[in-house]
Amino acid sequence: MPIDLRSDTVTLPSPEMRRAMAEAELGDDVYGEDPTVNRLQELAAELLGKEAALLVASGTMGNLVALLAHAPRGAKVILGDESHIFNYEQGGAAVVGGLVYHTLPTGRFGELPLERLASAAQRVDDAHYAQPGVICLENTHNRCGGTIIPLDYVAQVRAIADREGLPLHLDGARLPNAAVALGCSLRELAAPFDSVQLDLSKGLAAPVGGVVAGSRAFIARAHRARKLLGGGMRQAGVIAAAGIVALERMVDRLAEDHAHARRLAEELAAFPDVRIDLETVQTNLVVFRLDPARWTPQRFIAAMREQGVLLGGFGDDRLRFATHYGITRADIDATLLALRRVLGAA
Amino acid sequence: MPIDLRSDTVTLPSPEMRRAMAEAELGDDVYGEDPTVNRLQELAAELLGKEAALLVASGTMGNLVALLAHAPRGAKVILGDESHIFNYEQGGAAVVGGLVYHTLPTGRFGELPLERLASAAQRVDDAHYAQPGVICLENTHNRCGGTIIPLDYVAQVRAIADREGLPLHLDGARLPNAAVALGCSLRELAAPFDSVQLDLSKGLAAPVGGVVAGSRAFIARAHRARKLLGGGMRQAGVIAAAGIVALERMVDRLAEDHAHARRLAEELAAFPDVRIDLETVQTNLVVFRLDPARWTPQRFIAAMREQGVLLGGFGDDRLRFATHYGITRADIDATLLALRRVLGAA
Amino acid sequence: MPIDLRSDTVTLPSPEMRRAMAEAELGDDVYGEDPTVNRLQELAAELLGKEAALLVASGTMGNLVALLAHAPRGAKVILGDESHIFNYEQGGAAVVGGLVYHTLPTGRFGELPLERLASAAQRVDDAHYAQPGVICLENTHNRCGGTIIPLDYVAQVRAIADREGLPLHLDGARLPNAAVALGCSLRELAAPFDSVQLDLSKGLAAPVGGVVAGSRAFIARAHRARKLLGGGMRQAGVIAAAGIVALERMVDRLAEDHAHARRLAEELAAFPDVRIDLETVQTNLVVFRLDPARWTPQRFIAAMREQGVLLGGFGDDRLRFATHYGITRADIDATLLALRRVLGAA
Amino acid sequence: MPIDLRSDTVTLPSPEMRRAMAEAELGDDVYGEDPTVNRLQELAAELLGKEAALLVASGTMGNLVALLAHAPRGAKVILGDESHIFNYEQGGAAVVGGLVYHTLPTGRFGELPLERLASAAQRVDDAHYAQPGVICLENTHNRCGGTIIPLDYVAQVRAIADREGLPLHLDGARLPNAAVALGCSLRELAAPFDSVQLDLSKGLAAPVGGVVAGSRAFIARAHRARKLLGGGMRQAGVIAAAGIVALERMVDRLAEDHAHARRLAEELAAFPDVRIDLETVQTNLVVFRLDPARWTPQRFIAAMREQGVLLGGFGDDRLRFATHYGITRADIDATLLALRRVLGAA
Repeated sequence: MPIDLRSDTVTLPSPEMRRAMAEAELGDDVYGEDPTVNRLQELAAELLGKEAALLVASGTMGNLVALLAHAPRGAKVILGDESHIFNYEQGGAAVVGGLVYHTLPTGRFGELPLERLASAAQRVDDAHYAQPGVICLENTHNRCGGTIIPLDYVAQVRAIADREGLPLHLDGARLPNAAVALGCSLRELAAPFDSVQLDLSKGLAAPVGGVVAGSRAFIARAHRARKLLGGGMRQAGVIAAAGIVALERMVDRLAEDHAHARRLAEELAAFPDVRIDLETVQTNLVVFRLDPARWTPQRFIAAMREQGVLLGGFGDDRLRFATHYGITRADIDATLLALRRVLGAA
Repeated sequence: MPIDLRSDTVTLPSPEMRRAMAEAELGDDVYGEDPTVNRLQELAAELLGKEAALLVASGTMGNLVALLAHAPRGAKVILGDESHIFNYEQGGAAVVGGLVYHTLPTGRFGELPLERLASAAQRVDDAHYAQPGVICLENTHNRCGGTIIPLDYVAQVRAIADREGLPLHLDGARLPNAAVALGCSLRELAAPFDSVQLDLSKGLAAPVGGVVAGSRAFIARAHRARKLLGGGMRQAGVIAAAGIVALERMVDRLAEDHAHARRLAEELAAFPDVRIDLETVQTNLVVFRLDPARWTPQRFIAAMREQGVLLGGFGDDRLRFATHYGITRADIDATLLALRRVLGAA
Repeated sequence: MPIDLRSDTVTLPSPEMRRAMAEAELGDDVYGEDPTVNRLQELAAELLGKEAALLVASGTMGNLVALLAHAPRGAKVILGDESHIFNYEQGGAAVVGGLVYHTLPTGRFGELPLERLASAAQRVDDAHYAQPGVICLENTHNRCGGTIIPLDYVAQVRAIADREGLPLHLDGARLPNAAVALGCSLRELAAPFDSVQLDLSKGLAAPVGGVVAGSRAFIARAHRARKLLGGGMRQAGVIAAAGIVALERMVDRLAEDHAHARRLAEELAAFPDVRIDLETVQTNLVVFRLDPARWTPQRFIAAMREQGVLLGGFGDDRLRFATHYGITRADIDATLLALRRVLGAA
Repeated sequence: MPIDLRSDTVTLPSPEMRRAMAEAELGDDVYGEDPTVNRLQELAAELLGKEAALLVASGTMGNLVALLAHAPRGAKVILGDESHIFNYEQGGAAVVGGLVYHTLPTGRFGELPLERLASAAQRVDDAHYAQPGVICLENTHNRCGGTIIPLDYVAQVRAIADREGLPLHLDGARLPNAAVALGCSLRELAAPFDSVQLDLSKGLAAPVGGVVAGSRAFIARAHRARKLLGGGMRQAGVIAAAGIVALERMVDRLAEDHAHARRLAEELAAFPDVRIDLETVQTNLVVFRLDPARWTPQRFIAAMREQGVLLGGFGDDRLRFATHYGITRADIDATLLALRRVLGAA
């Protein structure tokens, strides 16, 4: 078995999750009657400090129902050009919802330039322009390297949203990583946002699903949007049962993934062929580049695979290791050994 | 606990399913690496006689990805005005896909009038008209009473589809019921169709999901559409594991549900307040009306609920009992007793 | 030159219109600065008894901007299966706006069955259903034969719309024909509706365009929708100038077209091969069928063309003559002569 | 009357255009029978070196039908973040067509960075990504200051499009300005593109409309898309008649507008408060900034208005003069005088 550092989505459920799934009390969630789903949703709402929450089949679905719930046909989704929503969700908000992506350049930690954001968010009474609909941030920010979006920055975006009366959505697929790294609660990080999406099947290791949270009225609209997409599931308590374990038992252990990532990053930095911004290595992702004169990403990935280590890329010159549940200290040792074999002496 | 005859969607997973879920071999299905998902998809393709199949989160998602995979923006979905797709799926194909519902009146067993169908399916080179995109049938047909759509009728629709070069999609949410009732294979019933959707979480009692099947090229497009909707799930083998049990172990036992429905229907027919077309009671659904001078659907549903029996309606004057896994002969006895109490002597 | 009775859309502008276009005072209407456009819009609003009106490039655009202005993404457009909007506008509201057509069977004069309409218009708080968005009627009704929709019927539909809080839109492409036939004002016929679309380029003979009218807030939304479609035109006063002449000078003369149509219809009725419902011949359209044992529509159209007379059909077995500006009493005489040659002695 | 330099869209038709409109030979263009429309379309196709062309109500409509004709639901429109299509067309391609805007940063003359363009245009077989659908350039480029997009740059973009099998669309709203400035033909500038949109109602001074041109198959699809939007107009020859004059008589005189713009720009450059890149002043637009410490765009626009001169802005700190038909040398003199009054001595 290779050491799979491609993504934290490859995590397998813990034995406790499997047990919870097998024993879950179930009902028909399309009728709102699955007690385990209801319990997960209450737990998620509580943890995120929102009125209500909704189980979704994936993070992509969570973001999509949130955008549909926030923005009417023709409105703009203002977001970063490096965001997961824009890059990896097949343009869903435009295709499904007739929304207009307005991308802004992304900063080092996932920030969008405030002046341009303020300008994009302005509601101008002129039929030439699509109206702003919703602003999105991402925390931690995947393509920036698992970075934590600075809290004071978020406050400034919140102020813009308030000034324009716009909702602010958080793609918090990996929000627990940010919370653990900062030593704060999910609730604190979610507070400035009208809605939050959080994945259960990334670092938290549940097999399937995520949640979105927000006001009761927002969740009612998101619930309709979920049904529109065919995301209404029947005895979804089997999924929710693992999600409850994920939220209750799997958050704190993310610290271990972060330590593994840090170690990996620091050792990587020592190789002459590697370009890495160590300040962006804040959680469980390690994004770096290789000297393009000596490497293509494809060749490096193949060489590491031969050494029994899997990693991924972003379709450009960036490479990524993701540490996660199931990756041990020994696996990191082995990865470092493989790196030395592939990249030569550090 | 009431006797819940509202729908076969309320079925709880069998102990074997729970065990299968707990022990499933898993992987990341977004990478195509979940062996249990792959096994379910191969099994479903094999049973339905198609090249490939795809796990989906719900029947609604199955129909939606099929329509998106078949028809380009602006094309017509030709289907019955009593179909599940048109009535209960929030208009998804129009909203999500820019498709145009062209509904036709529905016959007693779910048939659409052939002449009007042929006319709706005609490709006219004139910019006034939306072009035909796909024809949909439903088997068994929910709002007709769980009726089996006649095989020779399907052949005639197939001929129209062939003449116009149009794909033919089957909403086979309850196709296993039709197969069991006719004593034939799923494959035979699926053969005339380019694509088939089959629910795992109705009569087959899996907690979550369904499958769509069709050609390899169709499934590739459906797979993209599923991702667009956020229906890509990670370790979806936990769901698929139950689905495999559903397909392997739960089909034959539908005969029992049919017998229960038949018994219920025949007893119902004897009450003077009841209007029922016994010829439409062919599987596990019993659709009937009550003398409107003496009953509203709401009042009847409430009266039965007081007797510990739940049933549903269609939003008009029709009522429906659905028999399913978990409903015993004794439950039917109790239901008949309740009916007698509520409706008076038969 | 053949006698062209295919449609009243073939009308050529009057000399007065041409003069008005050539001399129109112009400005940039995208800035709201075209005085002739503004004058037309005020005139149309006044005549239709609404707060405001908007020039559009076509009747199809008028209906589309109205539906987009009334109904949010995912809402239902409730309308007749024989309506122009459903049949001849390429499904625009679904494709462009993500709206869901809910068609109902159309009665003899264009009415929709009230009970089914009431049921379709009901707002049910259940995520299975698309929500109602707008109800549409058509007056005069093209495919019913230019029939006038009964005023007391409209009142009943208005009551349903009021009960559900739904807007009611009128496709009044040929509303002036109804007004002239009834001897009443456009305003009276428009009164029960929240919005009205009226064509300038059908019976009124303007070369291009139509208007939609409604409340100021509605028109503001329709104006945005028009821009979305690329319907914002610059010195549109050249079009509006002819539209003003159309509204001021061309309405009363429709009585002549109606007399021509009546004469044609009554003579047609005498031919044994012709099936015609004379009660539906109320304005300038004459819809009829021929004995299918002896005629196909194509053959009849071709035979009449050989006699120098053009007419049209509906894609089924119905045929249509449309009388209009430019068609004289002598043309009708010639048409009757052609009919006798083609159909034999009456 | 103020000197209106806000836009070349404010141009009034020439006397010859008015005469042509009044005398145009007309027919019903929805039936393809308007001889003047047909003549305009043939002329435009010929001038642009394409198989066919289509009259549209506006430049926005021309771009929208082109994008709908090129790209299926869910595909990406790759274009500049400063493009007219992205900024001023209300997001139409996303809203109407379910297309996904993929914006790239815009260079000084309207170029997009080739490496990022190549990456955005890549067709990756992975359901995470929207597929590329069409690449758009703009010539002359409005928000860059009426710049001409370099021909050798276009060749490089064409090579990328060819490699990926993607269509390349030109928003050539002001293409005649580029042709006149370069002293070449429209056909040469249009050659690398699969489709071209050209406005008749900007510098060419026709009151309404534009054309799109491309292959016969493309135009057939664009024609359907135009009908979808309600852009099918009846006796559209009244518009086309002016368009023919525009194409035949109004192109060469653009040189005069360019000379006026150049003079304006050079004088502007001498004012200490003005920041202007004179190399971008290549046609009839003059885009500049003012010292933000001393001016807001609003205050400058107001001050010039008081002097009887109108100009416009881009919603940020940029200001724009547009010279056009109807603006005389004396108007430029007066504008310069006004500038001196407002900005002080140069």
